[in-house]
This record gives sequence, C-alpha cells and structure tokens, in this order.
Amino acid sequence: MAAEAPRELAERLRDTRKKLDEDVDVWLSTADAEGHPYLVPVSFLWDGTHIVVSTVRTSPTGRNLLAGGRVRLALGPTRDVVLVEGTAEAADVAALPPGTADAFASKTGFDPRELSSPYQYFRIRPERIQAWREANELAGRELMREGRWLG
Amino acid sequence: MAAEAPRELAERLRDTRKKLDEDVDVWLSTADAEGHPYLVPVSFLWDGTHIVVSTVRTSPTGRNLLAGGRVRLALGPTRDVVLVEGTAEAADVAALPPGTADAFASKTGFDPRELSSPYQYFRIRPERIQAWREANELAGRELMREGRWLG
Repeated sequence: MAAEAPRELAERLRDTRKKLDEDVDVWLSTADAEGHPYLVPVSFLWDGTHIVVSTVRTSPTGRNLLAGGRVRLALGPTRDVVLVEGTAEAADVAALPPGTADAFASKTGFDPRELSSPYQYFRIRPERIQAWREANELAGRELMREGRWLG
Repeated sequence: MAAEAPRELAERLRDTRKKLDEDVDVWLSTADAEGHPYLVPVSFLWDGTHIVVSTVRTSPTGRNLLAGGRVRLALGPTRDVVLVEGTAEAADVAALPPGTADAFASKTGFDPRELSSPYQYFRIRPERIQAWREANELAGRELMREGRWLG
C-alpha cells in the first residue's frame, strides 16, 4: 500500500486533538526505579490540558506513578500514532476539577468511585506530543514541545 | 456493546500465536536506569521462540536494550491485547538463525542490512505472555509463565 502524502502541521494538530477527545484507551508505559518497564492499556479522559487515568494504587502502574510519575503513552493504532511524554500527578476526587470524575465515568464506562478497590486518579500533563502515520511522516512529527502546542 | 463470552485457554493460545505470526507491529516499552519509560511502535518477526526487532543502536530504545534488556511489549488493539514480558539480547546478523534476517525483511518491508544507519537486531525471549479482550477475560489471561506456554 502506498503511503499517503504526509500531513501538514495543522492537519496533524486537528487529528491529534480529535484522537485525544474521542479515543477511549491509551497504552500507558511507566517504569520502576530499577529500570523495569511496564505497559498496560488504560481508559482515559482528555480534559483539554491533562490526560486523566485511574488505576488501582497497588498495581505496578499505580506504584510506578506514585513513586515517580514519568510516563510515555501512545494512542494507536501503530500506523496512526500519537505519542505523549509527560508527568503524572496523583489527584484525589476532591482535587479534580469539578465534573472531571463524572466525565471520566461517562466516557470510559467505568467509575472508580463506585469500586471497592483502592483506585487512584492521575492527571498526566503532556510535555511533548508527536504524531505520525508512516515513515514519511517522521519529519514534522513534533506537535508539542516543553508543554506548548506548536500551532 | 455487550462483551462476548470469555475465551478458554485453547482459543486464547490459538489467537495469540496467530497474532504473533501475522501482526506486523508491536508497542515496545523499555526504560533507562533512571526509571524513565520509553515506548515506540516497531515492526517485528516471531520466529517461533523469539520476537525479533531491529532499531538504531543510538535511539532511546536501542540504548535501553543494550544497557539492560528488560522489555514489556504489547500487540493491540487495546481491546484485544497480547502482553509480553521478556528480555532482549542484541544479535548481529551473523548470530541470527539462518534465514531470520531475510524473513524479517520480507515480513516487515524494511531491511536493516541495507540501511546506512547503525541498526541492531534484538531477539526478545518471552517469559510471560498474557492475553485478554475485555474485563471479563482478565481471569485466565496468563498463557506463558517463566518461559513456558501453559498449553
């Protein structure tokens, strides 16, 4: 299959914001202090500035995020990638902006507030965002740098 | 959408081997010694025992694999997951089993032997494999433990 023409910045920004709004799951990669990577799919909510996720506090992802907070996450599929580097901050329900927990439950179909396991919300602030489809889009893949959108 | 009935072990094994044979890309997660995670999609070849990937030696993934070798990788999509934990070992072309480099090029459509950048093959030996689609398949998701298939 011939690759399509590479998208310009404005189109990538539009596509990326649409994926952040509409995709339900991300691949969330974390690591522990010994350098062991961890990777798991989780549901998320994009609130316009943060990617909000929720996971059991005692899971590997929960422990890694509580200990460090560095994340790298991807929206797929692998030939229509949005890659995000950022830092996660634990947030209790009371610390979330109003309506966030409701919006999270509505979008993802699961409501951590109703579960008996000790779930923890995390707000991930993107610092760098890249988007590409095929190799011909590797040039120009940076859409956010040091927390600022490039368009 | 109502979830389908959870698959039994035999069906998950069959589906997982088929994905290893037929999928072209994996999400490959590594980490550096400081606990910074890294995540990138890469093409792969399953040779029956190892997941073979190739990346530029000086890329973050290349450096992490050369320094440590712990990986966690995923085949998608996020609602039909195969998750693999394993260790990567660098292998030069001469050290690959006969035909592997040709099979890699044929399957992935890119041949690191022909590129001027210093690419490195890595053979990833799975130690643990899990597969699930929706939450109702979390029970019974383990298909390989300590390097042995459970069926």
